[in-house]
Amino acid sequence: MLNSRDFIGCNAPYNEADFVLFGAPFDSTASFRPGSRFAAQEMRTQSVGMETYSPYQDKDMEDLKVFDAGDLQLSIGNTEMALDQVESFTAQILQDRMRPAMVGGEHLVTLGAVRAVYKHYPDLHVIHFDAHADMRDDYLGAALSHATVMRRVWDLLGDGRIYQFGVRSGDRSEFLWGRGRIHTQKFNLAGLEGIAEKLGAKPVYFTFDLDVLDPSVFPGTGNPEAGGACFGEVMDAIKLLSPLNIVGFDIVELSPPYDQSGISTAAACKLLRECLLYFSAPFTK
Amino acid sequence: MLNSRDFIGCNAPYNEADFVLFGAPFDSTASFRPGSRFAAQEMRTQSVGMETYSPYQDKDMEDLKVFDAGDLQLSIGNTEMALDQVESFTAQILQDRMRPAMVGGEHLVTLGAVRAVYKHYPDLHVIHFDAHADMRDDYLGAALSHATVMRRVWDLLGDGRIYQFGVRSGDRSEFLWGRGRIHTQKFNLAGLEGIAEKLGAKPVYFTFDLDVLDPSVFPGTGNPEAGGACFGEVMDAIKLLSPLNIVGFDIVELSPPYDQSGISTAAACKLLRECLLYFSAPFTK
Amino acid sequence: MLNSRDFIGCNAPYNEADFVLFGAPFDSTASFRPGSRFAAQEMRTQSVGMETYSPYQDKDMEDLKVFDAGDLQLSIGNTEMALDQVESFTAQILQDRMRPAMVGGEHLVTLGAVRAVYKHYPDLHVIHFDAHADMRDDYLGAALSHATVMRRVWDLLGDGRIYQFGVRSGDRSEFLWGRGRIHTQKFNLAGLEGIAEKLGAKPVYFTFDLDVLDPSVFPGTGNPEAGGACFGEVMDAIKLLSPLNIVGFDIVELSPPYDQSGISTAAACKLLRECLLYFSAPFTK
Amino acid sequence: MLNSRDFIGCNAPYNEADFVLFGAPFDSTASFRPGSRFAAQEMRTQSVGMETYSPYQDKDMEDLKVFDAGDLQLSIGNTEMALDQVESFTAQILQDRMRPAMVGGEHLVTLGAVRAVYKHYPDLHVIHFDAHADMRDDYLGAALSHATVMRRVWDLLGDGRIYQFGVRSGDRSEFLWGRGRIHTQKFNLAGLEGIAEKLGAKPVYFTFDLDVLDPSVFPGTGNPEAGGACFGEVMDAIKLLSPLNIVGFDIVELSPPYDQSGISTAAACKLLRECLLYFSAPFTK
Amino acid sequence: MLNSRDFIGCNAPYNEADFVLFGAPFDSTASFRPGSRFAAQEMRTQSVGMETYSPYQDKDMEDLKVFDAGDLQLSIGNTEMALDQVESFTAQILQDRMRPAMVGGEHLVTLGAVRAVYKHYPDLHVIHFDAHADMRDDYLGAALSHATVMRRVWDLLGDGRIYQFGVRSGDRSEFLWGRGRIHTQKFNLAGLEGIAEKLGAKPVYFTFDLDVLDPSVFPGTGNPEAGGACFGEVMDAIKLLSPLNIVGFDIVELSPPYDQSGISTAAACKLLRECLLYFSAPFTK
Amino acid sequence: MLNSRDFIGCNAPYNEADFVLFGAPFDSTASFRPGSRFAAQEMRTQSVGMETYSPYQDKDMEDLKVFDAGDLQLSIGNTEMALDQVESFTAQILQDRMRPAMVGGEHLVTLGAVRAVYKHYPDLHVIHFDAHADMRDDYLGAALSHATVMRRVWDLLGDGRIYQFGVRSGDRSEFLWGRGRIHTQKFNLAGLEGIAEKLGAKPVYFTFDLDVLDPSVFPGTGNPEAGGACFGEVMDAIKLLSPLNIVGFDIVELSPPYDQSGISTAAACKLLRECLLYFSAPFTK
Repeated sequence: MLNSRDFIGCNAPYNEADFVLFGAPFDSTASFRPGSRFAAQEMRTQSVGMETYSPYQDKDMEDLKVFDAGDLQLSIGNTEMALDQVESFTAQILQDRMRPAMVGGEHLVTLGAVRAVYKHYPDLHVIHFDAHADMRDDYLGAALSHATVMRRVWDLLGDGRIYQFGVRSGDRSEFLWGRGRIHTQKFNLAGLEGIAEKLGAKPVYFTFDLDVLDPSVFPGTGNPEAGGACFGEVMDAIKLLSPLNIVGFDIVELSPPYDQSGISTAAACKLLRECLLYFSAPFTK
Repeated sequence: MLNSRDFIGCNAPYNEADFVLFGAPFDSTASFRPGSRFAAQEMRTQSVGMETYSPYQDKDMEDLKVFDAGDLQLSIGNTEMALDQVESFTAQILQDRMRPAMVGGEHLVTLGAVRAVYKHYPDLHVIHFDAHADMRDDYLGAALSHATVMRRVWDLLGDGRIYQFGVRSGDRSEFLWGRGRIHTQKFNLAGLEGIAEKLGAKPVYFTFDLDVLDPSVFPGTGNPEAGGACFGEVMDAIKLLSPLNIVGFDIVELSPPYDQSGISTAAACKLLRECLLYFSAPFTK
Repeated sequence: MLNSRDFIGCNAPYNEADFVLFGAPFDSTASFRPGSRFAAQEMRTQSVGMETYSPYQDKDMEDLKVFDAGDLQLSIGNTEMALDQVESFTAQILQDRMRPAMVGGEHLVTLGAVRAVYKHYPDLHVIHFDAHADMRDDYLGAALSHATVMRRVWDLLGDGRIYQFGVRSGDRSEFLWGRGRIHTQKFNLAGLEGIAEKLGAKPVYFTFDLDVLDPSVFPGTGNPEAGGACFGEVMDAIKLLSPLNIVGFDIVELSPPYDQSGISTAAACKLLRECLLYFSAPFTK
Repeated sequence: MLNSRDFIGCNAPYNEADFVLFGAPFDSTASFRPGSRFAAQEMRTQSVGMETYSPYQDKDMEDLKVFDAGDLQLSIGNTEMALDQVESFTAQILQDRMRPAMVGGEHLVTLGAVRAVYKHYPDLHVIHFDAHADMRDDYLGAALSHATVMRRVWDLLGDGRIYQFGVRSGDRSEFLWGRGRIHTQKFNLAGLEGIAEKLGAKPVYFTFDLDVLDPSVFPGTGNPEAGGACFGEVMDAIKLLSPLNIVGFDIVELSPPYDQSGISTAAACKLLRECLLYFSAPFTK
Repeated sequence: MLNSRDFIGCNAPYNEADFVLFGAPFDSTASFRPGSRFAAQEMRTQSVGMETYSPYQDKDMEDLKVFDAGDLQLSIGNTEMALDQVESFTAQILQDRMRPAMVGGEHLVTLGAVRAVYKHYPDLHVIHFDAHADMRDDYLGAALSHATVMRRVWDLLGDGRIYQFGVRSGDRSEFLWGRGRIHTQKFNLAGLEGIAEKLGAKPVYFTFDLDVLDPSVFPGTGNPEAGGACFGEVMDAIKLLSPLNIVGFDIVELSPPYDQSGISTAAACKLLRECLLYFSAPFTK
Repeated sequence: MLNSRDFIGCNAPYNEADFVLFGAPFDSTASFRPGSRFAAQEMRTQSVGMETYSPYQDKDMEDLKVFDAGDLQLSIGNTEMALDQVESFTAQILQDRMRPAMVGGEHLVTLGAVRAVYKHYPDLHVIHFDAHADMRDDYLGAALSHATVMRRVWDLLGDGRIYQFGVRSGDRSEFLWGRGRIHTQKFNLAGLEGIAEKLGAKPVYFTFDLDVLDPSVFPGTGNPEAGGACFGEVMDAIKLLSPLNIVGFDIVELSPPYDQSGISTAAACKLLRECLLYFSAPFTK
């Protein structure tokens, strides 16, 4: 008789869950417009406006085993401590033989999750959708920043492990540095199919910066960058990822205060639903 | 010297009108975000920002005979009474040998109009643009709801009379139930041309839930559902309807409070103008 | 390590609770601007921006026993069914020897709660803060409406049991009808102290329509009515209620979509905290 | 059965009206934030959220004879032509032996109305509520501007005819120039009672710039100026004007796009209702 | 150590600049929704959220010589004077052997700039992106209006010099009048390549009304007109202009108050960056 | 002919300035709603809507010597580095024999400024207006936070040097800890006059957290706390500070994205103007 306060359809018991969904409400290094800390909770609240059933996949969230753990209580303003908190929570999920599904927060929270996942899967590869390269070595004097996060991920994984798609903003040095080290598909999501085939059964972490979408579709984000992917292109791309061995994923950079219409939150909810429905299949505990 | 307070260009006398435009400001069963009650009046106010001339059709509203009757005074909170009020007003229009052009309100108001139109045209068919199937039998215990409206229309019309396009949300049971009973084109507007040909001169009611549009184009609606049609696709589709025997139509689910930018209202105004310009031609009193 | 998703500090187990807090997300009869259905959930989310400690009372929510039951799943669009659902949930709370603390929703939800409370306490009196008289016998043809709610409460309780304060809007007939039947203090909260003394230990239900506050303090409401009480006046008034035998209370008519700044939600959270802190004292199970 | 599109309760026939209400949607000289052109139409739309009955005066709009003429179609961008249009419409009202009640638009529209009223009443006096002195001789090179309007009124009326209240912004030269020429009450509305007594039966035009109110009460205006009057003070002041011979009045500078909450429009509607109710009494055609 | 307050990367000294960027904050003739006066300053402020480097062109603003002169102080409300101010500032730039890059303001400011540019380049041609024809001879009685601006430009340049693209709104007479006088590509940007080739080395002024973009991409504008170009189409079009002899350009009709999400301002910033990067190459002082 | 981009009237050369105004755009530790980083730049932009002349003081900004240095480029996300940057810029101002006038940012930036000022004036006292005690020893594990800033200031200054006014939120331990160490006036600004007299000629730093104002007056802030001071009370209080030896001051916690109406920014601009006008008098270089 009571409405659930979990993300819609994520009502499996912790012990039986395949994915553990959690929020990482941190945006302290956001260089332009903060607010992504509110994303996960807003997505839970607004998810009641969405069906659990996907006509795209003919699957239903009710048939999945996802546990919504709620939001972490992160040390806003203390970047290193917040990342440790994300890392340790992610490590616990992995240790309990479940998979993390994290909702940011700014993109930097990905670093905390990847640290934990990488320890578990030393052969980890990362697929990265984003409007921004995020490959700076430091930003305004800070080594830990939403603008450096993929560089820090590279510090862990090294060359040939990161595959970027949709990048349409960065400074020249980021693009130059990345050559030969990471795979960067500028402007769109082309070539994902080939990469997916190449990766085969390797463990893959998927980090999905929602600003890869065009701002018309997704205005509620910290750094809107015109000229992005439309919703259908992104849906097609997620489908291509479904055969992969996704050992964890995140969805980041929704900033609800910058979208009074709520269409960004609604799009994020739908994309999270589709990710959970696509990625839950191939995994075997 | 005074600005008109009618929808732009709708200044025919009642007696001479081809279409009677009216608002049905009711949104009591909206399950997510109400506000569509304000649509018709907001459209009138904002319509001054639009030309009466359509370069798409090379036709002008000034050459049409449309009477804007204003908004009905509906019994907010009393669903059955409100539907009766819509039905009886629509019946009067038909009896006076004019055609109804209704602006919602939520989609449930369509039921009131269809009840009246169906009595007039027992061979009525319905063309339905929508992001949502609206085919539930009941919703949260209510048989009359924006989520059940097309099921109630089916109760009247029976199998083979309803043609849905653009549907990308619903629960599994709705889609299953619909098979063989209604024509459902998922995700897009494909196949409309064939349907239009097949319908020939049969009486058709066109119900246009504006959320068939992508939320980027139309954010101001109660249940934004990513992945919808772009504006051009919808314009093409309306053109395909123009040879039909449209005996009435409605435009529903604009919710102005959820779009501070006003682009949703502007799009709705333009689509209403184009509908009136397309549909006014083939009708002979 | 995880953030609570309850209203801040309301973490008592159900069995040990003094108050059971719950949301009644219903606004189907709102005649002007709906949206209060989102109030309770938004208050939970925003309550993290508030301290659990009140410097006004030198008391802390952590020391209270309040259980947050979440939001009821109400039949939006079916007024009578929704009221039954509120009534039956409230009755259960009373039967379990706890007290209801309901967050609306529109004011009509009060009727559901009062029906249950009145069955438990036939000598029930009601103290009512509101900008509007809410004393119509019907509204737009509906007997059940936010504009008739106190008339329906009067149907139950009869003369001399309802004490209104702050009323600054209504039609003439409401005020005329109320004379001799209910106590109405127009425009402000004067005289509350005397009423409180008079009521002594009688069971009192307190219904707090937040629009009694001036719209400058509380813009996010369905029917903003200029010339209301300032925050300090309302705080003083709540304090005057604290010695009473409050057997239940509600806070209604916060409509978050109409206040982008969030100050209305913040004020509602604070007032709810203060009510819980004031009213929790005198009750003995 | 249809909702009125007039300002609530203003449904007298033109010929029988005491006041003719009209909108003057012009804001071309607004130096800071334009948008007041939308005020009158928005007030009509939102007025349905208000009662026709005033508990302050125990009077009802239904008992008045006010005709709502709608909005003038003004030459946006051509200041002199727009003022001529306002003047000629006002002159027609006066010639037809009715009184003008104009809703701006920016404050400059007052000049058009006063020009007409002054021709009719050479002994005209003006009472002026405003946060700003509006007494510049020119502004950014323009002699006709919202910032010069009262200087232009002075050009017509001369010394000792203008009474300003609530002024809390201007440049030094405006205040210096005004000494001995106009009566200026800075910061508040004190002294109005004495002025009202002094004016006796003289013809008075009342120009009410709503930004005299504090921005907390009235955020939706072009030049919000902190430290203004609260709603109650302004209501008391309007009451003091009621015995005067008000031959016309205006309400200006509501800018709806700058108040998403709508409380400014609601306050303006209520003040317009109270003005009409207060001023309608003493006039004899 | 201090943030620049110029548009990002526009830090050349005046004497060494190729382009002089300036704002023309005027919107007095805007017939629907004013607010474009705030565009240039908002673009400067928000430009810090954008990179100086363009991955589309592999060029960087840091390598350009652009001087940001700030906003002109225009006579709001006095149209002719404001145009003179724009003209004289533009003339000065040209005399100093630099090129003007103007940010509106409403489209009428283009007339001021073109007057100056035309005196310098009597063989001037104009390329015009716009949703609206802007070819009226007068509008609401005003010869100078955002709705007449291209007609006034035609008054200067005569037949065969103006090339319009993307026009999807106007009245019938505008389109009829334009035949044989101006080149109008309705609805899209097709045919630009051929025009560009034909123009060769002729001096071209490019006036870029941002509402040529679809409102989904660019909601923050005075007259949103559904069915416009997507961002990629416009980017391709600007590239086609790069070989031309662009002697000046403007970007107009961004109205920031109508886009709370800020995506319109972000898109405008990016388009300005791309224009500056494309157009700076072929010019030789 | 060009509009200034400085805060209005702050156009003295650096060398001749009495106050150096600068922005500190940092909000990384904001625990609830970030956005104050945009305050200073927004205040500059909106300050054109305000006069330079104060009728309260009969003084004009044009007669002051204030230099607006713009915004510091702070290391968002790296708290310690950002504080160092604020400290070193403040130290330079003091060394150049001018006084700092800082606009936040969140309240933590005050610590950077006070560190520098305290080195210059070992006998420094601090007057603190705030809704929040800000006296925690750590917050979510961080010693440097907007919620601990006054505790860190106390670490420097020790007992008896901090005078708080208007505090109406905190946890119990903060209030307990403060007793005997700092002077705390809860809820209002009472007693300031006596404190001012007691301080005499001692060097005083004034830190003005704008959320001491009631949210109705100042909605655009990170942690709105109902029940605050009205504008007039704060203006009176600032006047009481004018005889003191103010060696520096700051205004913090304006968060423009949370106030679409702009009244918070307008109030902040006016208060900054009044502070500069009051405090500039008694200082002798």
